[in-house]
Amino acid sequence: MPECNTPSVYQNLKQRVLKANLQLPKYGLVTFTWGNVSEIDRELGVIAIKPSGVEYDDMTINHIVVVDLNGAIIEGELNPSSDTATHIEIYKAFPNVGGVVHTHSRSATIWAQAGIDIPALGTTHADYFYGDIPCTRRLSNTEIAQEYERNTGLVIVEEFSQRRIDPMTVPSAIVAGHAPFSWGKNANDAVHNAVVLEEISAMALATRALNSGIKLQPELSDKHYLRKHGENAYYGQERH
Amino acid sequence: MPECNTPSVYQNLKQRVLKANLQLPKYGLVTFTWGNVSEIDRELGVIAIKPSGVEYDDMTINHIVVVDLNGAIIEGELNPSSDTATHIEIYKAFPNVGGVVHTHSRSATIWAQAGIDIPALGTTHADYFYGDIPCTRRLSNTEIAQEYERNTGLVIVEEFSQRRIDPMTVPSAIVAGHAPFSWGKNANDAVHNAVVLEEISAMALATRALNSGIKLQPELSDKHYLRKHGENAYYGQERH
Amino acid sequence: MPECNTPSVYQNLKQRVLKANLQLPKYGLVTFTWGNVSEIDRELGVIAIKPSGVEYDDMTINHIVVVDLNGAIIEGELNPSSDTATHIEIYKAFPNVGGVVHTHSRSATIWAQAGIDIPALGTTHADYFYGDIPCTRRLSNTEIAQEYERNTGLVIVEEFSQRRIDPMTVPSAIVAGHAPFSWGKNANDAVHNAVVLEEISAMALATRALNSGIKLQPELSDKHYLRKHGENAYYGQERH
Amino acid sequence: MPECNTPSVYQNLKQRVLKANLQLPKYGLVTFTWGNVSEIDRELGVIAIKPSGVEYDDMTINHIVVVDLNGAIIEGELNPSSDTATHIEIYKAFPNVGGVVHTHSRSATIWAQAGIDIPALGTTHADYFYGDIPCTRRLSNTEIAQEYERNTGLVIVEEFSQRRIDPMTVPSAIVAGHAPFSWGKNANDAVHNAVVLEEISAMALATRALNSGIKLQPELSDKHYLRKHGENAYYGQERH
Repeated sequence: MPECNTPSVYQNLKQRVLKANLQLPKYGLVTFTWGNVSEIDRELGVIAIKPSGVEYDDMTINHIVVVDLNGAIIEGELNPSSDTATHIEIYKAFPNVGGVVHTHSRSATIWAQAGIDIPALGTTHADYFYGDIPCTRRLSNTEIAQEYERNTGLVIVEEFSQRRIDPMTVPSAIVAGHAPFSWGKNANDAVHNAVVLEEISAMALATRALNSGIKLQPELSDKHYLRKHGENAYYGQERH
Repeated sequence: MPECNTPSVYQNLKQRVLKANLQLPKYGLVTFTWGNVSEIDRELGVIAIKPSGVEYDDMTINHIVVVDLNGAIIEGELNPSSDTATHIEIYKAFPNVGGVVHTHSRSATIWAQAGIDIPALGTTHADYFYGDIPCTRRLSNTEIAQEYERNTGLVIVEEFSQRRIDPMTVPSAIVAGHAPFSWGKNANDAVHNAVVLEEISAMALATRALNSGIKLQPELSDKHYLRKHGENAYYGQERH
Repeated sequence: MPECNTPSVYQNLKQRVLKANLQLPKYGLVTFTWGNVSEIDRELGVIAIKPSGVEYDDMTINHIVVVDLNGAIIEGELNPSSDTATHIEIYKAFPNVGGVVHTHSRSATIWAQAGIDIPALGTTHADYFYGDIPCTRRLSNTEIAQEYERNTGLVIVEEFSQRRIDPMTVPSAIVAGHAPFSWGKNANDAVHNAVVLEEISAMALATRALNSGIKLQPELSDKHYLRKHGENAYYGQERH
Repeated sequence: MPECNTPSVYQNLKQRVLKANLQLPKYGLVTFTWGNVSEIDRELGVIAIKPSGVEYDDMTINHIVVVDLNGAIIEGELNPSSDTATHIEIYKAFPNVGGVVHTHSRSATIWAQAGIDIPALGTTHADYFYGDIPCTRRLSNTEIAQEYERNTGLVIVEEFSQRRIDPMTVPSAIVAGHAPFSWGKNANDAVHNAVVLEEISAMALATRALNSGIKLQPELSDKHYLRKHGENAYYGQERH
């Protein structure tokens, strides 16, 4: 792959996307090359995303691919992630999303394979996700046969729309039979949510095995979500 | 944050609290910034505690916040942990407690989410905890809406009071729907107990899955607890 | 063991086999010396394989043993793996297999011990394995008593033959009461499949515990397998 | 602690015991100071053992304690492990045992807490243990009240005697409500068996959860145990 002597206008975007992708192996969310992170620059109308099938150990900023919102390659020598069309649909439908991540992290994938929403069972969940994390319906055979990756994005969007969930308050979905997608303000924030998703997925599995009927008090969910998010948040250093 | 040229009178206290907080990632008890450790100086009437939302990798002694028993900041530039009011109630009610730790460690949190006491099922438990580890009742909606963190501490204290448990013999509680709190003679001892709590929580989950009716012989609980604690202890090097 | 001054004609083959064996501890697939990888050179009619009972930390290229397709030692001072005869039967029956690996990796071994096929429950599975991963029948007492290792290979081959499974599309089997064998184009590819096998085995255990009746849509299995394999594959960089 | 200028006659024994103890944290078998390894010199009639309650990170050869078969300290400044009397009974009853190890490793302890023998469910088990690993009966209140640690050893010995199990073919036991003890030809071999015990305990937990009625074919147990042990063994490099 040729070296670019003049840094592209997308250099900072690509740098953030590279860094966010490298967090996936650091946090134990991926095996081999499974998983991909992207970030959108809405002003420029471009998305930077991991290339398909490249090892994390070998990945440099020059591997990061820049595509437009139709998936056409704007910059980069490699094929973008095969899941690019899914990322694009999420960006199109959820206007406040700045970063998207897809992994096959073990516990979240288990819920996806089981085809069951990840239930809110504790304040660890409520600190980041305001309610259950939806599992999509299965794709139809036609949706699988044609434009499969695009339809994967559309079925996520459909689920949030039909349930009237604000995607910024529940920044993850699991796709039935497949695996999770998470998002956030930017690529780094999306990966942060993916790490939390994996942890609460593991906790929820064992919690339900121990007490199959348990649910979280709605008031506790409100309290924990709202003390970290929104106007009256008082967690962290923001108000200091 | 400005550097203090003259070390404060709280320097040693803050150093111990910093060190104890850094043990949380070392022992795998925390994800991101989840978790906080404090230590009290009862003579000076102050508590040193982790700041809210600061990364462990970046944490230095100057980040540690010193508060009084009303939660007012005595020293430090940052907001103290949002759980400070819980720590304070534990210190107020349990006069021999010198350190408190809160985590969302996976297995203990699973028991908290399930709303079930962690049962004493083996001598690993009995070596550190003299009987089951209580799960609090759920907080009322009013307790959640107003002074939530303070009420979290009060509901722990209530549980020990109503069950007539000496908090120094069962140095942990789990809060229903939330997560564990542990304590000890000082911050280091509290973290030590949190590590043990996580291990026995994991063991108890699988033990009950394998044999749902099993209980520990009370005599074995007595033997193991008392050979390590109290007047006739003979474990370790103290009597040599 | 004497040093060879002249590198053997098998040097490259042995080097690849050494490297593939050292991936087993790296990916957490082995305890102590459990596990072995081989690769065949079909032109030369030889197989290079790990020696029996040698620690991974101490293993060098000179320990790798070269045998012919009757198991006779062609080069090397040590005994080849006691499972060599199993590898040989797999190479004989599956003409496109270039590498074979045997481990006792935890989750795949659990399915083998339970005597149950590893079910295809998600796209993580479908990305690498086109359908369930077969568990062999139990060996008869005679098959155990005489030529046990050879019969272990034969019972794997029998299972694929009777079920009419192409071994290149389902590159693993589990042997009832024993553990998994995986294979691939070469030694490295075989180990890659063994890593995936372990991950999907762990996911399948928890998925079935959560939802005992769940199955993967056949159309989703087709889609994921075929987007990575075969003529119309579009995953990775091959078409670029 | 004073330094000895003249190495004791027990120096080699103590060195092996130190090294074996340091393997416990390396293999993840212990939390804090839980666990202890000893080795006997039957000619000299002495046992070298870990001191009670000393951190592994700080442990040096001078901390290792040498006791006689009555538990009297022959050499060393520290108290020996509080479990020394258990080790002594195992050495007294099992004349071919050269090393003993006690841990609270998670999965083996789960079986002990459940009070259930660890069943032989696969060849991983059969490679090291010839049949189920016995769980002792509960100790009586009198056995707990007086000479508890000695009685822990005696109840292990009783179990092997009553079931007519050769302790060299099943080199571990689990004590009901407590945890495992393993042994071997020497301290290193005992720890090796403890590592295997933990792995097969974890596998057996999940195997039984997946298929509650499954058992290992006795012929497969024979085959795997006997190809590694005894006169006709052909695993490893011994016959070469």
